Amino acid sequence: MTTIAPASAVALQPTTDAELEHLLAAAQTAAAPLAALRPAARARLLDAVADRLDAAADQLIPEAERETHLAGARLRGELKRTTFQLRLFGEELRDGGYLDARIDHADAEWPMGAPRPDLRRVRVPVGPVVVFAASNFPFAFSVAGGDTASALAAGSPVLLKAHSGHPGLSRLTAEVVTSALREAGAPDGTFALIAGTASGAAALRDSRVKAGAFTGSIPGGRALFDIANSRPEPIPFFGELGSNNPAFVTEAAANQRGAEIAQGFVGSFTMGAGQFCTKPGTLFVPAGSGMVEALRDAALPAAAPLLNERIQSGYTDVLSNLQSDPRLTVLAQGAGPLADPPGPTLLLTSASDMLSEPHALQTECFGPTAVVVTYDDESQLAELAETFEGQLTATVHGTDSCQVAELVEVLARKAGRVVWNQWPTGVSVTHAQQHGGPYPATTAAGSTSVGTAAIERFLRPVAYQGFPQHLLPEALRGDNPLRVPRRVDGRREA
Amino acid sequence: MTTIAPASAVALQPTTDAELEHLLAAAQTAAAPLAALRPAARARLLDAVADRLDAAADQLIPEAERETHLAGARLRGELKRTTFQLRLFGEELRDGGYLDARIDHADAEWPMGAPRPDLRRVRVPVGPVVVFAASNFPFAFSVAGGDTASALAAGSPVLLKAHSGHPGLSRLTAEVVTSALREAGAPDGTFALIAGTASGAAALRDSRVKAGAFTGSIPGGRALFDIANSRPEPIPFFGELGSNNPAFVTEAAANQRGAEIAQGFVGSFTMGAGQFCTKPGTLFVPAGSGMVEALRDAALPAAAPLLNERIQSGYTDVLSNLQSDPRLTVLAQGAGPLADPPGPTLLLTSASDMLSEPHALQTECFGPTAVVVTYDDESQLAELAETFEGQLTATVHGTDSCQVAELVEVLARKAGRVVWNQWPTGVSVTHAQQHGGPYPATTAAGSTSVGTAAIERFLRPVAYQGFPQHLLPEALRGDNPLRVPRRVDGRREA
Repeated sequence: MTTIAPASAVALQPTTDAELEHLLAAAQTAAAPLAALRPAARARLLDAVADRLDAAADQLIPEAERETHLAGARLRGELKRTTFQLRLFGEELRDGGYLDARIDHADAEWPMGAPRPDLRRVRVPVGPVVVFAASNFPFAFSVAGGDTASALAAGSPVLLKAHSGHPGLSRLTAEVVTSALREAGAPDGTFALIAGTASGAAALRDSRVKAGAFTGSIPGGRALFDIANSRPEPIPFFGELGSNNPAFVTEAAANQRGAEIAQGFVGSFTMGAGQFCTKPGTLFVPAGSGMVEALRDAALPAAAPLLNERIQSGYTDVLSNLQSDPRLTVLAQGAGPLADPPGPTLLLTSASDMLSEPHALQTECFGPTAVVVTYDDESQLAELAETFEGQLTATVHGTDSCQVAELVEVLARKAGRVVWNQWPTGVSVTHAQQHGGPYPATTAAGSTSVGTAAIERFLRPVAYQGFPQHLLPEALRGDNPLRVPRRVDGRREA
Repeated sequence: MTTIAPASAVALQPTTDAELEHLLAAAQTAAAPLAALRPAARARLLDAVADRLDAAADQLIPEAERETHLAGARLRGELKRTTFQLRLFGEELRDGGYLDARIDHADAEWPMGAPRPDLRRVRVPVGPVVVFAASNFPFAFSVAGGDTASALAAGSPVLLKAHSGHPGLSRLTAEVVTSALREAGAPDGTFALIAGTASGAAALRDSRVKAGAFTGSIPGGRALFDIANSRPEPIPFFGELGSNNPAFVTEAAANQRGAEIAQGFVGSFTMGAGQFCTKPGTLFVPAGSGMVEALRDAALPAAAPLLNERIQSGYTDVLSNLQSDPRLTVLAQGAGPLADPPGPTLLLTSASDMLSEPHALQTECFGPTAVVVTYDDESQLAELAETFEGQLTATVHGTDSCQVAELVEVLARKAGRVVWNQWPTGVSVTHAQQHGGPYPATTAAGSTSVGTAAIERFLRPVAYQGFPQHLLPEALRGDNPLRVPRRVDGRREA
């Protein structure tokens, strides 16, 4: 097990310009040798990081508890998710499908009208990436989280901009990651921690950096997106910014199991003190179905501390604004809704009020607050769904006989993930996961930040034309030495 | 065959604000029904467009000849390429691999630490797209070109901003496309032509438009890229902007077949009067190998007219600047290098001069001019390659015994396509083609604008969680009614 100096008392100092220059140069130097590693060799690096993180749990968890106010059990579960995620990307590397390898043999009779040359295409890493950590998942979306795992899997060195919400944990985690990579033989410069807003922005501006990834607020993410795109050489920026995650209950579902849905909703919007990017912020229920009463009478969980003072004050600001909106009334509220820690709040409005000025009532309120909206007629649901901006998720509670095809069509246009009779919180790390939707949910709706497809963000395709075997990347050679899935002359190789 | 009114004499009027509003509304209305068509039904639309274009060749070709100064044979070849391309996207739709369909069944024992829900992911169209046509391929990169074909294949309606270089042909082609789509049953609003710089920019700014695609100059492309990214809701912008396409000749290749390489180079840089985005603009040759003399003595083709007056004047401006650069001398020149039409020009410099201030000597010169660079030592080639910005292509002429692995590694980092012992002009439309490289070659190096992978630009993923079969997209249903390739629980379905 790695020996780690106790970090709790040590603040994370902003990275100096000289340190940043050194780390950027090291990342650039690491890019070629890291890219040159076989996929299975990079998988071993990820496994090594996962193993060391698991082994360091008893040092990491107490630091995380202290800095984030999250419970030990939740944090242990999150660490497990984080190391599972690293290993799953390792499996993805060993599978090789992520390379999207394609071979078109030369064809003198190619019906385009001109002979087809021998063309072979594979994905290669983009180069060094800056990852901006989030506060609400101090493991899974932070130093060794999904963005780091997928960038390293792709073969791109990572500069990780630590979140100020858990500086000690960031430093501890980075030490584990760095030493695990070193011991496993990764090139120097494969991973480094940086700190401070200015350093993060400076790294994103640096010409050696070729992509950025971020999880956080809309203003913060948009500012970084604008930096990435206004560079002399713009680079892709994958920001996951914010989401309201509306949920829609049909009349039949309300009649069949309204109380159960009410209870599930309360559990979902208050999970993690409402600090999940997939928290359902709006619930549409049929008027007169008894659901409003069921929600009013549902047992709200006890107040739980928010992650840090900035989130606490942001939450009370947004909630105060919502409470002063004449279209919203308080439906249910725990003790001390604006106190620290805050008791949960459920607000109530009507479909017609939401239609009158949707965006004000659809503001993301990061914490244990949600808005219940009563509707009179199920045929309104598609229209209500249309009023939302891009979302990470959208949820429908219905029955098999409900006429919801139009609603689902609208929601699939608005959101990256559509959920049926479940709740959006708890984002599973799988091959088919999609965590990313149209703006402002993300700045790149074509990508995901969770699940194995997240690796695609840090790759770009290169075609080799007419090359001899010995100069081709292994994945493109005739004998397929890496045994990767390929498309050959348009057909999938057996 | 469609009856088309003779268009030659009719100028293409700028689209008015009212017309644009009507076309945007129609495109938005078309989006859902176009997306809802089965892939094979959209393939039939593309086939219908291809068939009608082929049938209209005798009307389209003369108009193209008149407006672009390109020869009839070349234009007929390009039209063939264009209709082949439409049909190839049809095949891609029938194959279904482009959907990247993934199914993860529910798994209570998922090792992440929490049960895995049933998750199913598929790609859906992004919505209406604005395509900006290019001037140099009046068919293949214009009204019915690759961007249009791939966007329609994806299921995204297209607003096509016509290039002012061939207004009559644009109108004729659009009439064929529109009537073919209508007769084949496409939703109204699936395709429309717009004209005028202001209309193009206004369409790109409109909230109903969800992506942009462009082929043209760096300043023009960057301006549009900036519009797309500064919208309240930024959208992806796929610009193919410019490229120098350097080519490197090793000592062994020069010794073995220097004269043949010199001849091939002259053919490639003067092809289409040098107006290809893949024109090799720089050739590195070993000093003292006889290649400079072979290039000096190579037969240059006769002067050929450039596409239009704007390109002619842009070309003579850039060439005049290059000729006045003290580091460049004229190696070979046709009659009237600055005349209209211009004779071809070959300029000469040395590796040390290029290293002293690379970018000035690497400016793209759109027309029949290229720069020959002598080097003293093959070990300089990787360093010289490093001086280039992002490229569409990079070429190496070598032999099997050349030590070029490092050079190829650098070039694969700089370019989207690396060519061995061939020339980059002539971009084949295939599955493995990659036409797009790091900025400024393109604004989105992760994508291609040629080849079947171009469809991916206009798609985004959506995951369905816990859905009943009847509400799932067909590609995600258990019985796989569309027979699309899928990844199920991480494994490729047999």
